[in-house]
Amino acid sequence: MFAVTILGNNSAIPTLERHPTAQVVTVDNQLLLIDCGEGSQMQMQRYHIKRGKLNHIFISHLHGDHYFGLIGLINSLSLLGRSEDLTVYGPPELQEIIDIQLKVADTRLLFKLIFVPLVPGNGGIIMKDKEVEVSYFPVQHRIPCYGFRVKRERTKRKLIPEQAKAYEIPAAFYSRLQAGEDYQRKDGVLVKNDWVTLPPPPAQAYVYCADTKYDPGIIPYLAGANLVYHESTYLHDLEQRAADRFHSTAFQAASLAKDAGVGRLLLGHFSSKYTELGGFLEEARPVFEESYLATEGTTFLV
Amino acid sequence: MFAVTILGNNSAIPTLERHPTAQVVTVDNQLLLIDCGEGSQMQMQRYHIKRGKLNHIFISHLHGDHYFGLIGLINSLSLLGRSEDLTVYGPPELQEIIDIQLKVADTRLLFKLIFVPLVPGNGGIIMKDKEVEVSYFPVQHRIPCYGFRVKRERTKRKLIPEQAKAYEIPAAFYSRLQAGEDYQRKDGVLVKNDWVTLPPPPAQAYVYCADTKYDPGIIPYLAGANLVYHESTYLHDLEQRAADRFHSTAFQAASLAKDAGVGRLLLGHFSSKYTELGGFLEEARPVFEESYLATEGTTFLV
Repeated sequence: MFAVTILGNNSAIPTLERHPTAQVVTVDNQLLLIDCGEGSQMQMQRYHIKRGKLNHIFISHLHGDHYFGLIGLINSLSLLGRSEDLTVYGPPELQEIIDIQLKVADTRLLFKLIFVPLVPGNGGIIMKDKEVEVSYFPVQHRIPCYGFRVKRERTKRKLIPEQAKAYEIPAAFYSRLQAGEDYQRKDGVLVKNDWVTLPPPPAQAYVYCADTKYDPGIIPYLAGANLVYHESTYLHDLEQRAADRFHSTAFQAASLAKDAGVGRLLLGHFSSKYTELGGFLEEARPVFEESYLATEGTTFLV
Repeated sequence: MFAVTILGNNSAIPTLERHPTAQVVTVDNQLLLIDCGEGSQMQMQRYHIKRGKLNHIFISHLHGDHYFGLIGLINSLSLLGRSEDLTVYGPPELQEIIDIQLKVADTRLLFKLIFVPLVPGNGGIIMKDKEVEVSYFPVQHRIPCYGFRVKRERTKRKLIPEQAKAYEIPAAFYSRLQAGEDYQRKDGVLVKNDWVTLPPPPAQAYVYCADTKYDPGIIPYLAGANLVYHESTYLHDLEQRAADRFHSTAFQAASLAKDAGVGRLLLGHFSSKYTELGGFLEEARPVFEESYLATEGTTFLV
């Protein structure tokens, strides 16, 4: 499974109904967390996210609504007895903020906390394992801020079950077929792998565009993504306010999604001034039909 | 009005039903906040606490469940347009933790944030105005930690309305009678103040005993208080665990309340291991009848 679960979609001031930004990306058996506003650890409980499976946390920038919940989450993971490493990626100053808060509490974490600084002006791959590759890219905000592209590689070839049966290959061998092996039959026939499988499906990508003003310069990072989250703090009648505050409108987010040719678009980071969110879809869909609201508790398949 | 509203009563790990420690003390028209765990600003919204009236925040110690919500609250107060000064009292390192988080976000608060360090080993009055006096005292915990005593002075004399009417004093003069003035009648009679008023009622006190192990040494700070909050992280069958972790049991809290001769006792800071809290009352009441659970959202009159 490759999916995104929304824990918070509000900007700046948390409200009772809308929490600050946080998203869990599930890639098969591991969980990544992107941003961690205040209360994210409670939201993970609310939506039955297994905190123990979390092993990578990505913080886009150091405005509080994107990271004030991080220290509490780290603290709780230790109290819950975690022993596996946890890696946090974020602007360099975040390390000091974490360290000082652990130090004054005389807290020694039960697990190893690895910190990977995101370097201003750079970008590129910051995490990679067999299944997942995460890269970051700069976006335009008031302070250094980054977007993330999560790519799920699919290395298993796709089995054609009727073909495998026709060649009388035992089901116990199917996983080796998916890994690309040929099958040697007892009667001497060598069943070539590509007679019974298809190439792996293409890689999939989720792109998270954190707080940013409208910037067509990021289109290359969005291109070809199956699912893109782009902030839309305001509706387009407040285009100037959005620009002044380095934020975007729903219309702008939809335009980028269209121009980048992505699959689907998630809108979020709504200003607290909007108590009703229907207007964001009304504005985005005429530009880009596959637009959705990043509603809290909802899981979107990539 | 002099009252305490509980925003959170859980220890260490927040759960969906129980939030980390935070309490709002209402003294007539001003609000004091004691401790500010993660999510306190949302809890203030949930229970309709007017955040704008908050002008003093007291942090007992720097374990996260007592202050991780502070930076988010400060940030939101500024975003909401606050202009009045806000004073924060806490261990000295708290100032650096606040400052660094404002700095990396390039945040300039719209109001003046005054920080008053609580000095280890000291104690005494830290805040005083016409109505309220707050003093702090050291308690025994793993790291420097303090309790707070909030005293409400009552300076207005108590009017005896029937007497004031009998002497034909106009109602417009009543507030001056409460302030202690005599009344000069047109017919030459001087109505002495103590003919129509009684002395002000005695001062009232609320005492907050933050995370602490059982320590009869704090009894002098509790003595004569109308209402005392004392942590009771565990039930008494875990007395040894409580001592090891510098926490208290419900039995110990009740014993202190009895020995100090206080009015009523609030129990809180319950370990997450207890899903049901009835046992705390069952343990405390036989020792000290006037024991109550610090239930979230409940307001207790001092």
